[in-house]
Amino acid sequence: MNVERVQIVGIGCGHPDQLTVEAVQALQVADFAIVARKREDDPLLAARRAIVDRHAPGLEIVEVDDPERDRSASASAAKDGYETAVAEWHEARAARYEDVLAHRSGRAVFLVWGDPAFYDSTIRIVERILDRGDLVFSWDVVPGISALQLLAARHRIVLHDVGQPILVTTGRRLREAIDAGAENILVMLSASVDLAGLDDWHIWWGANLGTDSEYLITGRAVEAADGIAAARERVKAESGWVMDVYLLRRPA
Amino acid sequence: MNVERVQIVGIGCGHPDQLTVEAVQALQVADFAIVARKREDDPLLAARRAIVDRHAPGLEIVEVDDPERDRSASASAAKDGYETAVAEWHEARAARYEDVLAHRSGRAVFLVWGDPAFYDSTIRIVERILDRGDLVFSWDVVPGISALQLLAARHRIVLHDVGQPILVTTGRRLREAIDAGAENILVMLSASVDLAGLDDWHIWWGANLGTDSEYLITGRAVEAADGIAAARERVKAESGWVMDVYLLRRPA
Repeated sequence: MNVERVQIVGIGCGHPDQLTVEAVQALQVADFAIVARKREDDPLLAARRAIVDRHAPGLEIVEVDDPERDRSASASAAKDGYETAVAEWHEARAARYEDVLAHRSGRAVFLVWGDPAFYDSTIRIVERILDRGDLVFSWDVVPGISALQLLAARHRIVLHDVGQPILVTTGRRLREAIDAGAENILVMLSASVDLAGLDDWHIWWGANLGTDSEYLITGRAVEAADGIAAARERVKAESGWVMDVYLLRRPA
Repeated sequence: MNVERVQIVGIGCGHPDQLTVEAVQALQVADFAIVARKREDDPLLAARRAIVDRHAPGLEIVEVDDPERDRSASASAAKDGYETAVAEWHEARAARYEDVLAHRSGRAVFLVWGDPAFYDSTIRIVERILDRGDLVFSWDVVPGISALQLLAARHRIVLHDVGQPILVTTGRRLREAIDAGAENILVMLSASVDLAGLDDWHIWWGANLGTDSEYLITGRAVEAADGIAAARERVKAESGWVMDVYLLRRPA
């Protein structure tokens, strides 16, 4: 006995109405949902519960404790160190998820914040479980609204000037993108917002998009920087967590 | 008398179940929908009708003929020429949409293919109408699933290797992205797929994603190129249109 089907479902950024109809249907036909629990009182867990309660009340939610990731300086300093730490973390998560999938039947849905296509490890973890060879199941992916799309919608902007490219990257690789001449840079997964030297760039920033604690700031980076730092602290104090995303546009 | 509220709603790429719950609600409370008609028998118009019929039957659809865009060699050759041609086209579209909004009341929804945040002009056109100063209305944007997300979902991939950036660009600027060293390049709006010199790159390609004529190809570019060219022709012959998107990943 093990699950027959796995669906990796993007659930948007927190608001239950941001799921697609297809995602709602996936929840409704599932036998159980799997969510990662980052800590005892993980606030994103409560947001996921609210989504399930709204669209598929009664669906069982299996919480899987997230293994610790090695975030030590030595593990993060080198590019290889970072990748090794992430790979080990994926392996540990895969073992935990496999244990759940091996002892249950029917259809499982993974509830993924945003869209599984951007900076999320669930697809890689499911592939890892299948590569181990002990379980056989069919699987597919249902896309969801990503924070970067909600950022654009809330600021009512197109993410680029006419015909221009957009670079999507992480906070840790922002400087590299600037040095390479990128014009429109969308930054996800930033531990802090460092706008040093970007005075004349324009920034569109958003935190906890789609939730009650949503916060938006836009303007020239030099004028917006202090407000963003303060807003990050306030949002975190008010809601217990802060996840932000921002677009930087190079001055013309 | 003119409209009081305008919602720019991303409707995904063709399948009615790819709208978010929020987008469905916007359709249901709207007084009419506006869609662009590119030609007499525009096949995307039929897809939009099917979406409206499924979620908001009876909602009036106002079709606005798209003005011709200057695609002459002289207009496209220079970067300035291209931008001027696009700006003139936006202005002509704005005048037509304003005419509709000025002579109706209530709530209007613009049905935008994919997500209004990527390579779509509706937001700019609505801003232009407001800038003219003759109409006053509130407006907001509802994000939708973009073709690039559906491409990732159908191929069951994350759009980048762990922690790497993604460059989203257009077919006309692909070579520039390659020359600049981009690792993961997502190409939208390509009139053709030119993979010359990219033999060892990996490509994930998809056409008419989300529709009955959806087609996927993946592999080393040198091996995939002929199949993609043939599939483009086949999809176009079968369904009357082809819209494709692809991810290119630089060899390690």
